[in-house]
Amino acid sequence: MAVEKEIQPQQMPQTDDFIFEPLLRKELPQQKVGFNLSKRSSHRAMIGANISPIESLDYEIVANELLNQDWRTRAPTEKLQYTIGKWVLAFMVGLFTGVVAFSINMAVENLAGVKFLATVSLMDLKRTLLAYALYTGSNMLLVLLSAMLCIFIAPAAAGSGIPEVKAYLNGLDIPEAFAGRTLLVKIFGSIGSVASGLVCGKAGPLVHIGACIAFLLGQGNSKVHILPWNWLVLLDNDRDRRDLVTCGAAAGLAAAFRSPVGGVLFALEEAASWWRNSLLWRTFFTTAVVAVVLRTGMSSCKNGACGLFGEGGLILFNVSEQLSSYGFLELIAITVLGVLGGVSGSLYNQLHAHFFLFNTRWQNRKGSLLKLAHAGMVAFVTSTCSFGLPWLVQCRACPDNLEVECPTHGRIGNFKAFNCPHKQYNDLAGLVFNTSEDSIRNLFSIDTPLEFHYTSLLIFLVTSYTLALLTYGILVPSGLFVPAILFGATYGRLTGMFMVSHGLQRIDEGIYAVLGAASFLGGSMRMTVTLCVILLELTNNLTMLPLVMLVLLIAKVVGDLFNDAIFKLHVRMKGIPFLDILPEQSMQQLTARDVITKPLMSFSRIEQVQNIVETLQGTGHNAFPVIDSCSPDKVLLGIVLRSHILLLLKTKSFQLTNGHVSVIRLPFSEESRKPFSTKEVTLEDIDLSTQEMLSYVDLHPVINTSPYTVMETMPLTKVYALFRQLGLRHVCVLPRDPKGPPITGILTRHDFMNDHLLQLYPDLRQTKKRTLSSFSNVFDDQ
Amino acid sequence: MAVEKEIQPQQMPQTDDFIFEPLLRKELPQQKVGFNLSKRSSHRAMIGANISPIESLDYEIVANELLNQDWRTRAPTEKLQYTIGKWVLAFMVGLFTGVVAFSINMAVENLAGVKFLATVSLMDLKRTLLAYALYTGSNMLLVLLSAMLCIFIAPAAAGSGIPEVKAYLNGLDIPEAFAGRTLLVKIFGSIGSVASGLVCGKAGPLVHIGACIAFLLGQGNSKVHILPWNWLVLLDNDRDRRDLVTCGAAAGLAAAFRSPVGGVLFALEEAASWWRNSLLWRTFFTTAVVAVVLRTGMSSCKNGACGLFGEGGLILFNVSEQLSSYGFLELIAITVLGVLGGVSGSLYNQLHAHFFLFNTRWQNRKGSLLKLAHAGMVAFVTSTCSFGLPWLVQCRACPDNLEVECPTHGRIGNFKAFNCPHKQYNDLAGLVFNTSEDSIRNLFSIDTPLEFHYTSLLIFLVTSYTLALLTYGILVPSGLFVPAILFGATYGRLTGMFMVSHGLQRIDEGIYAVLGAASFLGGSMRMTVTLCVILLELTNNLTMLPLVMLVLLIAKVVGDLFNDAIFKLHVRMKGIPFLDILPEQSMQQLTARDVITKPLMSFSRIEQVQNIVETLQGTGHNAFPVIDSCSPDKVLLGIVLRSHILLLLKTKSFQLTNGHVSVIRLPFSEESRKPFSTKEVTLEDIDLSTQEMLSYVDLHPVINTSPYTVMETMPLTKVYALFRQLGLRHVCVLPRDPKGPPITGILTRHDFMNDHLLQLYPDLRQTKKRTLSSFSNVFDDQ
Repeated sequence: MAVEKEIQPQQMPQTDDFIFEPLLRKELPQQKVGFNLSKRSSHRAMIGANISPIESLDYEIVANELLNQDWRTRAPTEKLQYTIGKWVLAFMVGLFTGVVAFSINMAVENLAGVKFLATVSLMDLKRTLLAYALYTGSNMLLVLLSAMLCIFIAPAAAGSGIPEVKAYLNGLDIPEAFAGRTLLVKIFGSIGSVASGLVCGKAGPLVHIGACIAFLLGQGNSKVHILPWNWLVLLDNDRDRRDLVTCGAAAGLAAAFRSPVGGVLFALEEAASWWRNSLLWRTFFTTAVVAVVLRTGMSSCKNGACGLFGEGGLILFNVSEQLSSYGFLELIAITVLGVLGGVSGSLYNQLHAHFFLFNTRWQNRKGSLLKLAHAGMVAFVTSTCSFGLPWLVQCRACPDNLEVECPTHGRIGNFKAFNCPHKQYNDLAGLVFNTSEDSIRNLFSIDTPLEFHYTSLLIFLVTSYTLALLTYGILVPSGLFVPAILFGATYGRLTGMFMVSHGLQRIDEGIYAVLGAASFLGGSMRMTVTLCVILLELTNNLTMLPLVMLVLLIAKVVGDLFNDAIFKLHVRMKGIPFLDILPEQSMQQLTARDVITKPLMSFSRIEQVQNIVETLQGTGHNAFPVIDSCSPDKVLLGIVLRSHILLLLKTKSFQLTNGHVSVIRLPFSEESRKPFSTKEVTLEDIDLSTQEMLSYVDLHPVINTSPYTVMETMPLTKVYALFRQLGLRHVCVLPRDPKGPPITGILTRHDFMNDHLLQLYPDLRQTKKRTLSSFSNVFDDQ
Repeated sequence: MAVEKEIQPQQMPQTDDFIFEPLLRKELPQQKVGFNLSKRSSHRAMIGANISPIESLDYEIVANELLNQDWRTRAPTEKLQYTIGKWVLAFMVGLFTGVVAFSINMAVENLAGVKFLATVSLMDLKRTLLAYALYTGSNMLLVLLSAMLCIFIAPAAAGSGIPEVKAYLNGLDIPEAFAGRTLLVKIFGSIGSVASGLVCGKAGPLVHIGACIAFLLGQGNSKVHILPWNWLVLLDNDRDRRDLVTCGAAAGLAAAFRSPVGGVLFALEEAASWWRNSLLWRTFFTTAVVAVVLRTGMSSCKNGACGLFGEGGLILFNVSEQLSSYGFLELIAITVLGVLGGVSGSLYNQLHAHFFLFNTRWQNRKGSLLKLAHAGMVAFVTSTCSFGLPWLVQCRACPDNLEVECPTHGRIGNFKAFNCPHKQYNDLAGLVFNTSEDSIRNLFSIDTPLEFHYTSLLIFLVTSYTLALLTYGILVPSGLFVPAILFGATYGRLTGMFMVSHGLQRIDEGIYAVLGAASFLGGSMRMTVTLCVILLELTNNLTMLPLVMLVLLIAKVVGDLFNDAIFKLHVRMKGIPFLDILPEQSMQQLTARDVITKPLMSFSRIEQVQNIVETLQGTGHNAFPVIDSCSPDKVLLGIVLRSHILLLLKTKSFQLTNGHVSVIRLPFSEESRKPFSTKEVTLEDIDLSTQEMLSYVDLHPVINTSPYTVMETMPLTKVYALFRQLGLRHVCVLPRDPKGPPITGILTRHDFMNDHLLQLYPDLRQTKKRTLSSFSNVFDDQ
């Protein structure tokens, strides 16, 4: 054998004698709930700002007599309904996400616009302090409202939401994260947080919103059926919901950046854990719908029908400069940008992780008021910076022969008058006293070579980096894309100014700003094609493609030398039992047998109700092997899911007998139409009389007769490949010795978690973890 | 059980008594080679223009004592070598593909340029017949040279090559398709076929060329080691080679269209069967290298250093018109374009398939001369059309206030003089008497509203459609992308002219031409995101994005109503045993047990050499179960691969004995460094004396002790999911009854092929196949 067990488990000594436990022994409460409850308790993770229990989803085609969930065996009309249903839902996800995104943008633009206009007009009246009070007050109000929604109504809505979407698409059931109230809070909360001028974006929240919409349309919340159509029940299963949520995530990102192809690639590269080409097509359709909705919305706003919403929010940053040529020196500058992005991005990730942990720790201990105060505080600091910093820099004279207005007093325009006299403008005000979108547009602007001072940009650089770190800790919906773009664009523009001031004018400063944004995004988020396409779609300039690719590749390589991508860090910090594509290092020396936790609880094919109820009460396990205990050699019949047993119990499909086993099987015509709506049945819902408890039930109709199985001697890495790539929830481990019991154990997601394995076998913990292996992490590959 | 066996197999009656066959019974030659040779013979497919045997590749991590192929268990320095090696190879694939693509373009542009210039100068001297003779003669010469290369040197180089790449990436070993001579013939052949003015492109051949380069660099051809570095042996395995070939395919398409993101998406959407996100990054890196190489090459050609290569070939079609707005009528026109593309594209696929089959049939029967004559004939017809058709249309006066030259006599320019007097031009000559790239640029041209007659475009439409169909049958390298773009752009332009002539001038005719190209590509190739990105990168115009998406989606839906994508049709027609992502309809009613072919040949752990040799001689099977026949209950120890047994035999790792079994195990230190280079060992290479034949060998060190296994009662669809998604070559079927033999059989790719299943169970053949199921094909989904 290649993989010999060299290490003995420390915690639970493995015994070779195998005990069947069809019944729960009441005298052994510890043992009976042993591994199962410990499993449950370890499956708790931060969802938004709350610690919630999470369960695995079930993507396996359950082939049992009762619930044949394989749609391919259905009647032609049902198949047609099924396929049409999927496309209708994908269309609706795109439509709703587009409408919501447009509304958020309109609300943000109008709120921020009114706020800025009022402040500016007070300043024009020289009532500066009042202007400051109004500006800060309105910002704090918006943030506090947003934070109150998050704290009191839906804590799951706090933060970016992308880690939760990733977790769901990795096969984790976290209904709270996609509930209706989470959706509402996310929508209104992100309006508040973005309009208040916090250094946070709406891309992450929009991804979460898209996923929420998809989850709810896909009947994910089985208590409330959003859509009244009965035949949608065909789509009411974990696999189809996963596909729909993938579409939702793509739609969200597409709406945030008006980048349909970028949205598809985001779903592929970052969000989804399982991918098929047919999904490529469906997400593409969804994002196309989003693009059309946004376009329609914008064209209906052209005549000023949408208040202050005009040029802002949704428009592309047209970086129309066509790159002609560039030389060796420019390439060096761009390489430096890439390295800078990698270093500062990974540093950002590291600091972010520490801040996140720090904030989470005290927030979990302290009350709501303190959290609110924290939010108010950050809003206050942000507003003060935003209003106060421009006073530190000198006013500059408006350049001559400028095509645009200078200075401006209104909502839009690069050259803000702020505190400056006639014909002068405040360059820092154009960055900090502005919405994030407008700041980015300002930084990306082409043919404005002398717009900024070095000092202004440096002040903005430090401020935005610090504020972005501070902001993510407060409990409001806040995205990470926009701060990263803001920060990267600033040092990119600085680099560009340096190059241009040294006579290398072949690349405009605005292009350097775009490349800087690419480098920081690449260094922090570590996506490649997605970011490339998003930036190209965002700036509407394809000639930059090779440069953007170069910057992204360098930034990713450099960043990977230090730590993981920011969303991966978040997933880990939140304690989400995420199944990565590659097995953990610790699995290499283990076989399936080594990680089985005993005792295994199993049922006989014909089992007493009381035994079943007690077993279910005593454990949180979701699948139980069924053994044919009638035949002389015990044959494994398959496994039953907890939910299916509950269905049997609820429908009372058993015979009342007096000792004599006589089994009936009900015709499950009604239930088999709704195969997955069994979720809502809990043990508490089922009332059983004493006589019923003593009767017997035939589990046969709900046995999944063909679970995926592995031999107990299989290396754990190979078991993991099976488990991960097929998206399983349970895998049965069979004994090598044909004379032994028919099944050795069942492995679940928990058994593949690195922490669990290291707990079982502490010797596997390698101290020299981050030396070379971290370098080969750069090429995270198999 | 959910899936009951309802149908009895017709061909091979299944017996329940299981016979072990560790030895071959000489008296039963039919039986001993029964299913295995039939397997072999069915694994023959058209590779290029040749019928070749093909085998499956082995992606499984083989965990045996001798050859531990899991790189993660290697030493840190080896890991580092491994990861760096992968990136170095990816870089080299990009570099070489870029250089080759650039050279091909330069050669084509120069050859075609010289040809056109000579012809035109003869025409200017009014020596029309001589011009015709020169033109046709040179074209025929080029085509004949190309065809001779294909017919006599490397038949595998004929055609597009994308089906072969798809087959390889689906796990099929077809060394001939990626041999060095195939690469050379593909390069020179496609220069000939494209330069000769045949209606064929170089995108498909470039994909094949990229894949070839990757395959050869990845040591795919184990006889010749291209790269001298010893440590590359770490990468010499099927999984890493698959990844590299994926990069090569991406590089090829990226080089063809200068579309790096499009190349990545092509690899993802069309070429690859298995995908991981780390591959996304690596292909992206490769295509970035290609983009840089092409850019460097083009900038070095700027000063006329590359002959007639200047604006041609590689430049983007700059469709610089910015779309401002469009209304309802334009959307209707675009929808019509989409439907038109779907209908004409699927019709094209259908005709294409019929032509392909027709050509293949006679070509397999007839000699080389006839094939050459066929190629010459098509070249003659194409040249005659190209030279003769422009005479049919009237000359048109050059428009006034034109920025470009009119008429032109040289290589480039929209307005060809051809036979026309001064200040007039021949619009059809600009389409047919031109390279395909220039015709496309002509059709895509913006702000040239009255350039074409309706009649000229209609003539070109019919001609290009017909010639494209005729061309693919001849034995030269020929791609399918460019003809599709050509044809689609023509009817798109026609639609645009119709719209503009009716006063709807909001969208330029050039844009309609791009949308037409999108619709035909979508209707024929059925890719979505890939085509969208390629067209946007090709035309360098992102504002068309929503329209291109719309057209592609409509064309794909309409096309899917009628038949499959063109490359899928090709794969099927070529007889390639392709594993689709979805199981076939016929698997739904079967279980693993139903498709096992008996008898199963197995080995004991300690086996006589003679038995092994005879078994291997008698069968083409590649894996054999090993049973521990010493122990009282027979335990399945694992499976051994044929190649590993051959390695044992070649290294003579057995003991010469006289009856007494005494086994030694050699230290395989040398061989274990080259785990996969066992491929070249064949049975014929091994000389064994009679005494050696009588001795015994211990198979233990080469047993894969953890093959993936399924229960015999598992539905075949679930077995297929395991087999396909993990990329297996063998899956062991275990008996349900623990008292039976330890293994029931081994399933391979062949057992999942629809034709094989229908042969076994003819009752599964459904007559009403193409009614509703074809409609739900539209949503090819799971």
